[in-house]
Amino acid sequence: MNKQFSIGVDLGGTNLRVAAYGAEGVLLETISLKTRLADGRHSVVSDLCTALAALLSRHGASRSCVGIGIGSPGPLELPSGIIRNPPNLPGWDGFNLRHAIESTLGLEISIENDANLAALAEQVLGAGKVSGAESLCMLTMGTGVGSGLILNGQIWHGSSGMGGEAGHVIVEPGGEACGCGGHGCLEQYASATAILRMMSSSSRTPASALQVAEWAAEGDKDALAVFQRVGRSLAIALASIVNLLNLPLYVIGGGASDAWDLFAPAMFQELQARSYIYRLTAPSGKQAKECGVVAENKTQICRARLGSDAGLLGACLFGLQNRSQHAVEQKVETN
Amino acid sequence: MNKQFSIGVDLGGTNLRVAAYGAEGVLLETISLKTRLADGRHSVVSDLCTALAALLSRHGASRSCVGIGIGSPGPLELPSGIIRNPPNLPGWDGFNLRHAIESTLGLEISIENDANLAALAEQVLGAGKVSGAESLCMLTMGTGVGSGLILNGQIWHGSSGMGGEAGHVIVEPGGEACGCGGHGCLEQYASATAILRMMSSSSRTPASALQVAEWAAEGDKDALAVFQRVGRSLAIALASIVNLLNLPLYVIGGGASDAWDLFAPAMFQELQARSYIYRLTAPSGKQAKECGVVAENKTQICRARLGSDAGLLGACLFGLQNRSQHAVEQKVETN
Repeated sequence: MNKQFSIGVDLGGTNLRVAAYGAEGVLLETISLKTRLADGRHSVVSDLCTALAALLSRHGASRSCVGIGIGSPGPLELPSGIIRNPPNLPGWDGFNLRHAIESTLGLEISIENDANLAALAEQVLGAGKVSGAESLCMLTMGTGVGSGLILNGQIWHGSSGMGGEAGHVIVEPGGEACGCGGHGCLEQYASATAILRMMSSSSRTPASALQVAEWAAEGDKDALAVFQRVGRSLAIALASIVNLLNLPLYVIGGGASDAWDLFAPAMFQELQARSYIYRLTAPSGKQAKECGVVAENKTQICRARLGSDAGLLGACLFGLQNRSQHAVEQKVETN
Repeated sequence: MNKQFSIGVDLGGTNLRVAAYGAEGVLLETISLKTRLADGRHSVVSDLCTALAALLSRHGASRSCVGIGIGSPGPLELPSGIIRNPPNLPGWDGFNLRHAIESTLGLEISIENDANLAALAEQVLGAGKVSGAESLCMLTMGTGVGSGLILNGQIWHGSSGMGGEAGHVIVEPGGEACGCGGHGCLEQYASATAILRMMSSSSRTPASALQVAEWAAEGDKDALAVFQRVGRSLAIALASIVNLLNLPLYVIGGGASDAWDLFAPAMFQELQARSYIYRLTAPSGKQAKECGVVAENKTQICRARLGSDAGLLGACLFGLQNRSQHAVEQKVETN
């Protein structure tokens, strides 16, 4: 068996996706399920392992599985694999996800924060591939603001596996209370949830962040002001991160980033005013608007490329990167 | 010649120090001069090179020089070695310091931002040595707030050599104008200059940050409030950095850090409130107050250990780390 593959799992609060990924860079098969949160965490782990075993069995006959990457909502303590107070997995606090999966499966896995895996995928296959950048910070504007940091091609974990939380960079010290216990984190001004909240003081009540974006596109002044604030808040956080890390690339994804045209002008304008490093390194002309090959010493800020597949692809890549699971190969070869 | 040494240079706006450093970890000789800024930058480079040549000649007879490390005030563009708008070296904007030194000396040098070198020295010989941490962020509370970032034992430069500027993390988005062109940077609330400014609205006019600290120690309410604000501002910046990077160690140095007892309680209290990662990883008991061996997964914040020698020692270490200067060895051996 010369051909290799990995298995990636994207465990979300709503969807559970498991994929087999050929080492040559092709998705072989994806299984998509609903995450049965109401049935308890062991049901979810059982579904996950059943799908994983099915892919191992189907693709393990013709290929050798070199690793299994699991993307989990955070905060995730590493290397233990224990989930801590996850906002999107209620009741999972303290759950040792690594142990639950490995004991069910009888195989060693690699586990990682899902936002870090999305960042890894963007670096290897998405905006980072287009721009040639080996380091990036990715922000995902979803229910919260997820984030991952890739430094020199590697996920930056920090000393207890909780690094890369750019959604909790402070942009308004006296601002909104955040789910993290702090105040004025970026997440409170740039997530879909925040967009809805910031619109709630207007005379109209939107059903979703998408609706706020539609109103803004129609010229609604309150909705436009909300996206101005999103852009300014992103710029305050980015200015701090640019000044601290001077990365070549910052990638913005997640559902709410579809409103890019509504918030990006304010973001770029404010960032020019706030970060001298950005002023010195901002690309000019067309490069300022579109992600391309990063000119030496330049700072690019652009939209994510991989959409909602980033987390799943990142899990597959992570499985490939961690090729030391002899248990996987043995198990597969005895099948 | 089995014994090796490096030469380090700490080029400051006031003092110019050049040292020979034995690879076994001992300072062999230090030359301390005033920085003759008024006589022009070429006089400063000339003084620097004369002192450097003297050390090379005196110690090169019995040891082999493996590298020359130069610490320069920033912002410094790397690898070119061009100084950009340096607040402490007026008139040096655009000066190619690397070229000026190398062409005068006829030797290859390694050049680096002085705050990065101070951080390197603290990691190898100071707080990092005591705590066992391989990564740290150092803040230097001086005229400004200098900063350096060491990740896995290496200086983090960022993509254009300007990384590690934690003094320009934003702590008050609508706050004081900063020399960098932004507003509300940490530097405006935690430098000696900021301490003086924040005290200026009181009825007494202090001569120095040290005097503000003396008044605070005597119970002056305005002075105490200034240091509360210093502590809170440090905490806002540190919360953003802790959440982004989850480093094991943050080191605070510089002259104004002598007022540690006046600002640290407010800093720790505010940081507990603002960073969930710090709350989860803060050491308890004695470890919270004193820098020691970092327990796994813990976050330590402590005072710098090396005082005003950090920059010079860092330059020496940097010379040792960059042992590829064949030009140096040849020159020395022909002496």
